[in-house]
Amino acid sequence: MYRTNTCGELRLLHAGNEVTLSGWIQRSRDLGGMTFIDLRDRYGITQLAFNMDQEPALCEQARKLGREFVLQVKGIVKERENKNLQLPTGEIEIEVKELKVLNASATPPFTIEENTDGGDELRMKYRYLDLRRASVRANLQLRHQVAKQTRNYLDGQDFIEVETPVLIKSTPEGARDFVVPSRMNPGQFYALPQSPQTFKQLLMVGGFDKYYQLVKCFRDEDLRADRQPEFTQIDCEMSFVEQEDVLHMFEGLVRHLFETVKGIQLASVPRMTYADAMKFYGSDKPDTRFEMRFVELNHLVKDKGFKVFDDAELVVGICAKNAAHYTRKQLDELTEFVKRPQVGASGLVYARVNEDGSIKSSVDKFYDEAALKTWAEAMQAEAGDLLLVLAGEQHKTRKALNELRLEMGTQLGLRDKNTFSCLWVMDFPLLEYLEEEGRFFAMHHPFTSPKPNDLAQIDEMLALQAAGKLSAAYESPRANAYDMVINGVEVGGGSVRIFNKELQQKMFALLGFSPEEAQAQFGFLMNAFEYGAPPHAGIAFGFDRLCSLFGGADSIRDFIAFPKNNSGRDLMIDAPSEIAEKQLTELSIAVKK
Amino acid sequence: MYRTNTCGELRLLHAGNEVTLSGWIQRSRDLGGMTFIDLRDRYGITQLAFNMDQEPALCEQARKLGREFVLQVKGIVKERENKNLQLPTGEIEIEVKELKVLNASATPPFTIEENTDGGDELRMKYRYLDLRRASVRANLQLRHQVAKQTRNYLDGQDFIEVETPVLIKSTPEGARDFVVPSRMNPGQFYALPQSPQTFKQLLMVGGFDKYYQLVKCFRDEDLRADRQPEFTQIDCEMSFVEQEDVLHMFEGLVRHLFETVKGIQLASVPRMTYADAMKFYGSDKPDTRFEMRFVELNHLVKDKGFKVFDDAELVVGICAKNAAHYTRKQLDELTEFVKRPQVGASGLVYARVNEDGSIKSSVDKFYDEAALKTWAEAMQAEAGDLLLVLAGEQHKTRKALNELRLEMGTQLGLRDKNTFSCLWVMDFPLLEYLEEEGRFFAMHHPFTSPKPNDLAQIDEMLALQAAGKLSAAYESPRANAYDMVINGVEVGGGSVRIFNKELQQKMFALLGFSPEEAQAQFGFLMNAFEYGAPPHAGIAFGFDRLCSLFGGADSIRDFIAFPKNNSGRDLMIDAPSEIAEKQLTELSIAVKK
Repeated sequence: MYRTNTCGELRLLHAGNEVTLSGWIQRSRDLGGMTFIDLRDRYGITQLAFNMDQEPALCEQARKLGREFVLQVKGIVKERENKNLQLPTGEIEIEVKELKVLNASATPPFTIEENTDGGDELRMKYRYLDLRRASVRANLQLRHQVAKQTRNYLDGQDFIEVETPVLIKSTPEGARDFVVPSRMNPGQFYALPQSPQTFKQLLMVGGFDKYYQLVKCFRDEDLRADRQPEFTQIDCEMSFVEQEDVLHMFEGLVRHLFETVKGIQLASVPRMTYADAMKFYGSDKPDTRFEMRFVELNHLVKDKGFKVFDDAELVVGICAKNAAHYTRKQLDELTEFVKRPQVGASGLVYARVNEDGSIKSSVDKFYDEAALKTWAEAMQAEAGDLLLVLAGEQHKTRKALNELRLEMGTQLGLRDKNTFSCLWVMDFPLLEYLEEEGRFFAMHHPFTSPKPNDLAQIDEMLALQAAGKLSAAYESPRANAYDMVINGVEVGGGSVRIFNKELQQKMFALLGFSPEEAQAQFGFLMNAFEYGAPPHAGIAFGFDRLCSLFGGADSIRDFIAFPKNNSGRDLMIDAPSEIAEKQLTELSIAVKK
Repeated sequence: MYRTNTCGELRLLHAGNEVTLSGWIQRSRDLGGMTFIDLRDRYGITQLAFNMDQEPALCEQARKLGREFVLQVKGIVKERENKNLQLPTGEIEIEVKELKVLNASATPPFTIEENTDGGDELRMKYRYLDLRRASVRANLQLRHQVAKQTRNYLDGQDFIEVETPVLIKSTPEGARDFVVPSRMNPGQFYALPQSPQTFKQLLMVGGFDKYYQLVKCFRDEDLRADRQPEFTQIDCEMSFVEQEDVLHMFEGLVRHLFETVKGIQLASVPRMTYADAMKFYGSDKPDTRFEMRFVELNHLVKDKGFKVFDDAELVVGICAKNAAHYTRKQLDELTEFVKRPQVGASGLVYARVNEDGSIKSSVDKFYDEAALKTWAEAMQAEAGDLLLVLAGEQHKTRKALNELRLEMGTQLGLRDKNTFSCLWVMDFPLLEYLEEEGRFFAMHHPFTSPKPNDLAQIDEMLALQAAGKLSAAYESPRANAYDMVINGVEVGGGSVRIFNKELQQKMFALLGFSPEEAQAQFGFLMNAFEYGAPPHAGIAFGFDRLCSLFGGADSIRDFIAFPKNNSGRDLMIDAPSEIAEKQLTELSIAVKK
């Protein structure tokens, strides 16, 4: 037996017990007469004491051991002289009687400490050492907790977890698929699922009623910092439900997770239409930890001789509470911020509401105090506030002001990682027009149902399409689609699905599929709809993202045991890699660089 | 709201309630004055009643509805006149007041009944309809239960579930990998994991102490009836443990599953060495629901003039209890059975122990009654028993007698699907010699530790190998490896791992890896062993197989929601399939049939 106890469990009440512990050397201190070693395992740290007078040979041996050596020790639990009350085991130490080195360790390439000296690449390469750091382990323990509580809740609500296949069929709609050549079917390929969407719908057709799965999904996209080629979803679907039932069920899930994982009682989740989110926040995933809503100023600012505003489609501002103290330098920096290509504004207008009520703006030449007061009034500004105004083409300006608003929220400390604000965003447009492709695309996916009131628009669009008159200007019907947004991050999204073959065919036609293409790619789903498909709806949560949010981190990578870098490489195992010619031949493929 | 209740929950106590139900038409009966419809959902079946006198229009409508139509009905719960006590809802029916057809259904290609008229291929193609059958749904609900209870047990034992990556690196050792071309790294490929073996070992190096995962694994093998290209494992690993700790922990898991899923209190799991399993059952996965052990007869049968036995390396038999009544025809059939190429014996010798104690054999010419009595004695045969004896080359004969033993077990009704017999098989050989490759292979995998007492043999083998003298005849060292066998099925297997770099290098050398090859393929693992790897051990259970065993079925396919056929095809979605030229180009590969 390697141990009688873990390194995290011994207390004063165990004093006098003979115990055996195993673990890693976190650090050691040689004080001449005494040598102390902090022994670490997953459960904690326990101090080992070696006495030069009593056990000189053992003490000599202990002095020579380096960091991260793996030890097994036998000894007696003693009350410590110098207690460390920061540590759960800090009232005791082990007076070591026997010592065995289970394994030696070379000097690690970086320190196994919270403030490690290892860079990102180095820690990725030696991920197994990075995993020894308490914060990394805590992240993955949190992930386990979130998974467990997700299952607890959904099991309690009569959901069945069903595994759907990983080797499926490639479909050109959506993001790029990873594919897998089939040896037994030469020239043919499986695809890895971007989501189990069609399978969960087929489970509903199959009468499973309530399905969920924590499931790996795959997208061959160019990676950003917070994207991984493989990621995990909480994937759910329900039958015989309306949108309201789904919102209720999954608001329940989110509340359960906050309560059990974070100990936070969540207020009921407010709702906002997509239209309002865009109008008041310039984003379909507003960070509602703080207000700072957009206020449109067109009716107040035109025809005063300021060409920028006169020419602008939209003039819109935000009121930053208590930020009138911003210096000229800070304001110049904000102007630089909004002019970055990623933000895209051409300039920034500001106005300070001074403590005495007077207002000083960067456009005093065009707007007198009285005019500025109308702005302040419209923006509900008070003494000490700072007004920030952008102008230009509507869509671009809202987008830029969204970035500015988030930046101001950050600068003013309004985006605390331990504060959580959840929001349902609803009534998304069903379709969006992509200029570069010259056609409408499904905003959520092609299986999303239009709102019943907007159904007639589908036929109207099809008629226009047939006449070659369907243009980008056509306003999309709204969808029964919803996103769960927490702290400005979209953590989940779903929709009520189409369950009628004719409507599904119309949707595919509208998206530019010929009937043959639709049949070839989604025939199995449309055929299934012929055999009594029930009304159904669902949702999927980004599990990695949800965990990182709960953990107060920005990157999902910290919550994945073995993540890949931005080129999709696993630096630790050095994958992907070349494969043998024999493998290629068996698979009936050749590399063609 | 689509329903107030499910089709499985209404009872007599609900009589008088107004309810709304949704579901599928299981069947309908038109009795003239009354029409009855059985409405089905996941939770059960409820009878709907339509009265021609009271609601003629509704009744007319109901009569026209076909099987598998999806309905929503509103009505009053009434006590039935003719109660069906077989059905949980059989004391009530719904007097329907409103009826809405939510979706129509074409006539299904096979009946949605327990005894369906649909063949295998047809049911695979329309899997979403097959899933509506109660037994198929029950199988997947059982699977959910087994998964849930597995997690409950392991969570309770402080295991952490960690997700390991699906896109990993191809390694030539073992079965064939599925590979995934990397678009971002042209000419390079990921592989799908055959198991997370190296990752779980790295998690141990990373200090995770106790890991598990229910995880999809992939093997590109030629498929047999009970193999699938993708399958699920319960994958586990522990640190600072000896073999005994692992056996104890996972015997606990199996007992927990039997108790919670099947309601069976399992006796403690007996153990058998690999050597004994081969000696007494001719198999490393003996079905221990029945005895019928092998008895070696060499010392009793030689030199009596029967050339077959005289020339045989091994003469070995089994005693089939109470089977002396077997007719000549049955015995001829058994002879045919053992002569099949898959079984491989050249003939069968039998002897009946009659009720009067006399013995009649097929080799009376060579063995008199006294000689046969020594057989009977050795085999502990009693009046009414049948002795079956095979002879020939040792290995082949044991294998054939194993098949015969299982066949006799089946014929004599000793292999009841509701009886469960668990067994640990231990002390497997570390290596096995494959004639066709002319070298030793790892029997479990290259990371398995030899038994400490057999360590010296590794050096001996390496010395012989260096001298070009290592032959197939060398008896392998034994491994600290173990299998869990239930009812003759290997449901799990694992081992104590090597955690020392030098020993791991020796193992790779013995398996024919050059140091460069070992470094290129498993360098990350051997490097990890340099930084304080703890002693560790683990196990993996075949989850699909475990579920099918619990469900009393022979095929794992019945316990997989969307299985593939024997050519690795998903007949429902028609995968794999060809992909677009554009995709191939992006991936820098070409098809080369």
